[in-house]
Order: sequence, then structure tokens, then C-alpha cells
Amino acid sequence: MPPVVGVDLGGTSIRLILLDEAGQIVKRALHPTMPRGGPEAVISSIEAGIRELTSHRAELCVGGVGVAAAGQIHPDTGAVVYSPNLGWRDVPIRARLEAALGVPVWVENDVRGAAWGEFRQGAGRGCRNLVAVFVGTGIGIGVIIEGRLLRGAGNVAGEIGHTVIQPDGIPCVCGNRGCLETYASGAGFVHRLERAIAEGKPTALIQETGGDPSRLTAAQVEEAARRGDGVARAIWEEGTQLLGVALGNVVTLFNPERLILGGGVVESCPTLLPEVGASLHRTEAMLARQRVEIRQGELGTWAGAMGVGLLAREGCGGNG
Amino acid sequence: MPPVVGVDLGGTSIRLILLDEAGQIVKRALHPTMPRGGPEAVISSIEAGIRELTSHRAELCVGGVGVAAAGQIHPDTGAVVYSPNLGWRDVPIRARLEAALGVPVWVENDVRGAAWGEFRQGAGRGCRNLVAVFVGTGIGIGVIIEGRLLRGAGNVAGEIGHTVIQPDGIPCVCGNRGCLETYASGAGFVHRLERAIAEGKPTALIQETGGDPSRLTAAQVEEAARRGDGVARAIWEEGTQLLGVALGNVVTLFNPERLILGGGVVESCPTLLPEVGASLHRTEAMLARQRVEIRQGELGTWAGAMGVGLLAREGCGGNG
Repeated sequence: MPPVVGVDLGGTSIRLILLDEAGQIVKRALHPTMPRGGPEAVISSIEAGIRELTSHRAELCVGGVGVAAAGQIHPDTGAVVYSPNLGWRDVPIRARLEAALGVPVWVENDVRGAAWGEFRQGAGRGCRNLVAVFVGTGIGIGVIIEGRLLRGAGNVAGEIGHTVIQPDGIPCVCGNRGCLETYASGAGFVHRLERAIAEGKPTALIQETGGDPSRLTAAQVEEAARRGDGVARAIWEEGTQLLGVALGNVVTLFNPERLILGGGVVESCPTLLPEVGASLHRTEAMLARQRVEIRQGELGTWAGAMGVGLLAREGCGGNG
Repeated sequence: MPPVVGVDLGGTSIRLILLDEAGQIVKRALHPTMPRGGPEAVISSIEAGIRELTSHRAELCVGGVGVAAAGQIHPDTGAVVYSPNLGWRDVPIRARLEAALGVPVWVENDVRGAAWGEFRQGAGRGCRNLVAVFVGTGIGIGVIIEGRLLRGAGNVAGEIGHTVIQPDGIPCVCGNRGCLETYASGAGFVHRLERAIAEGKPTALIQETGGDPSRLTAAQVEEAARRGDGVARAIWEEGTQLLGVALGNVVTLFNPERLILGGGVVESCPTLLPEVGASLHRTEAMLARQRVEIRQGELGTWAGAMGVGLLAREGCGGNG
């Protein structure tokens, strides 16, 4: 079983993990993405990152590479069909990396990669049916059913951020109204607070913005809510309550053993998990029958790189 | 490959289908359930129905029996854990029927059985990923992922009727508020119209109730809406719109190739399918990427018996 590399390609950073023969982490690396150079430059820097990671050996010694990318991945070709975060359309990343590196490459959606990481080596160890939700700028879920990743017929399953949680609610960038992301994502919390400020609502956060409310973070909204800022509190409470309702619906539909919450907003906002859990348990169907265990993710920002590294390892014939 | 029998055990009827060596339907039978006699009487009448169905041969010649039951089925024992429709708790129906008949018995939730029937022999033929929704007294979905039934960790996946579609909406019998069933099921449409009558709202349907609004049907509500009855129209439109939103969310989460609508309300209300489809396509996330084909079920009220007959056939080693 040769070593493998897992690569998480995000809009701002490229994270790389080298897993050794036994599947243990040997090295990690973090590079900026610099998407302005275009796909070719980004793919070259992934290649350089992989070579650097394995530079303690004379030649590239990995058996395979897994790549997690934000966006829609073509199920057959491993091309990035569309990635708003990267600004990419139809980039044949698998073919390019395979040609450059001479080893097989597996490409997976970043949320599903992170869910696989938590399933195999994180908060999902020991169960066969789980849902992992990642709350960052947007919101997505990765679903494991009987030990297998749910991908969907078009490889776009799990887009919970664009499920409608409030019919006729706030307009979303996607063109619908009332999407979960408009209420409960990092971007959603900040946009709602920006709008409250623009409407002249009284909030102490106006002092923290330095004149640019778009620089606020979800963590600042949460902290202000905890301090008793009325405007921040209303936005925070509505968002966490609706996220709990949406996740209660997911539990009702998928009936998982465990629900894992991860992502930047979960990690930077300590009250998110208990508030979402309380809302979920209030609205989950048939509570007694479906009791689900709620846990915070264990792998943090490295879940995606870890997950696709493990997928590559399994693709090479190893176990996770 | 011996013949098999599929049995759909509902609150009012028992439907039986005999499938021959080639998996074709040979005979059907319909008996009343008579749940007042208790589980033993119901199980005896299932046994008698199976023997009668195969009475053209000297002895019981079936290789296996599938049973679809409304309610929660124990994944290991095949017992009915809880069925509100039958008024059953912990009835070991598989063990009783196996002892009585001397052949293996498979027990499946009725909605999942019907989804399997549509998948194998109905509107789902030719695809590997589908969601089948059945709108009757309640609402449930059966999900097929890569050709496999989604059951969930506790065997209770798919309870879409009790997902919350309108936060802080109408109270549901389950104790939550805003469940889909309160707006868009057969019982939901009728209860809402009953309530409108009780509140003195002007509807022509009051003449059709014979003094007992609970005897109304969803089809009467739909017909009155089509005739232009304002009260019926508001209830009908809100219900179909919210059902479309809920199914759009299901499409966004599962990304199936096909969505199949069946059940008594779908069959008795011709405008349901187009109205739900229009609402779904308005709210479905990323329409261009996830385009799903919407079809009406083909097997009607026999989908469940057919589906569990096919599951029994597959359990015996045959193909569907």
C-alpha cells in the first residue's frame, strides 16, 4: 500500500496531507490558492505542493491523489463542472493532474470529502449511517448510507444550503426565496446584519465594522448576540432555529445514527451546536423513534484533505 | 424460481398478489382488514388469503412471501414495532407467518414496498436513483439510491409527512407545528376545510358534507377549488405549493433522476401533479443542474403488494 496525498482545493487555500503506508498523517502543507492565475496556475501549484510534500524521497512515491474541490464534479471525468468559489467552469482537473503526476487521481466535492474524512477518521467513526453538515460561507451536507457516500444521479446531492426553509422568505442569490443559507450560513448571518445596519436598526456592532459591515464575521454576530445586542440576537436566534429545523428534517428523511456539525462557523461560534441541537430536538419527527446523536466534527479544516486522501487510499485498494 | 406472494396490509384492506415463476402477476385478491379482531385474526386472514390465492394447486407452492405494513418495522425481526393505522405495537408478524406457512417472509414498510414496486415494474423502470412520494391519508417517500432502498439506521427513513415545511405553522397531531402532512395530505386538506367551516368561512362545500365535514375527501376540496370556491382554492393552493417546496427540497438533497408521485390523493385529484410540479420547479435548487423527471406512479393501489412480492422474489434468489 503506497502513500497517498489528499488535496483540499478551496477558494482561498490549498491544503495537502500526505498519508503513509499505514494511512497515518506524515505531513501537512497549506498554500494560497491564487485563483486569479487561472486554472492552469492553480493546478501547477497543486502539483508543486504534492512534489514538495514528498520531496524527502528522490522521486514521487505516492500511489494516488485525492482532490476535494468546492463545486460540482463530473461523476465520470473528474472535471470541475462548475465552481463559483474558484470561478471555474469545465476544468479537467483529474486529467491534468494524472498527466502531470503519472498516478491515478480521484476528485470529489469538498463537502462529501470532508464527510468521508469525519466518517473514517473523525467524529463518525463506528457508525454506518451519518449526516455531516458543514457551516461556513455556505452550508452543505455529506451523507453516508450503509457506509457509502450519497452522490446523487448528477453528483450534486446534499445542497441543503439551497433548500427552502422559509417559504416566501428572504431572497437568495440563487434566485429562490427562503433558502437555508440566507439565514444560517456565515455569509447569511453577516448579510442580515449588514441589512439591519443599512435599515438603521440599533446595534453595537456598527462600531466594530470600521465603516464596512461586510467585514463582519458570523463569530462577531454570535458574540454580540451573547452580549445581549438585540439586533444581533434576533438574527442569530432565527438562523440557529431554522438550521435546527432544516437538520431535523434531514434526520426525519435520512434517519442517520449520528449528525456531525463542522465548518468554520461551527468552530468559531461555541453556542451554535447547543442551539441548533435544541431546535432540532424540538422539531425532529417522532423523537423517541429517531433519536440521533449530535457531535461536533473532529478534523476541523483538514477534514476535506483527510477524506479525499482516504478515498484515494481506498481507490488504490487500501482500507480507510 | 418458485412463485411468491406479495401482501399489502393496510388499515382497511389486505391486498394480495401471486407472482408466477417468471415474476408475472397470476392472481390478485382484496380482503377487508378487520383490525378489531386483533393481530392474531388479521394474521390468520392473511394466511387464509395466501392459501386461497394458491388453491389451484394441491399444496402451498410459494417460495416466499413479502408483506408491506403501514408503520415502523423492526429491521432484524420483521416485527411491526408500531403501526397507528393498524393499532399495533410489537406484533411479530414475520415469525407468525413463517411458522404458519413454512416459507421465508420479508416484511417492509408499505411506502418503501410501493416505491420498490414502482422502481422495478412501474414508473421507475430504467433508472437507478429515484424518489417515490405517496400522498394518501398521510405522506411518505421511498428512496432508491444506486438501486438500493434507503431504510435508515432505525428503519424509519422517509417520513416526509412530518418534516416541518412552515416553521411555526399549523399544529400537527405529532406535536410539532408546520408539518407537511397538515397542509398537503388527504387528511390535511380535509381538516383544514373542516376548520374553515367551523370558523364560518363561506364555502359551497358545506352543502356537500351532509352535516359532517369530516366525511369530505381531498378530491372534493380539489374539485371545489377548480370550480372557483375561494376557501377551497386557498387551502388547495397552499397545500400543493408547500408539497412542491418540500419535494423540491428532497430533489435538492437526494438529486434523483426521477420523482414519482402516487397514492390516493394523486390518483383522485388530476390537478395535483401539475401544480406540485410547477411549485417544485420554481423552488428547486439550481434547476439547470438537477433537472428531474416527474411522473405519476403506474401501479396504483397495487404498488405495495407488487413491490414486496418482488422483494420476496429477490430474497428467494430471483431477479425483480
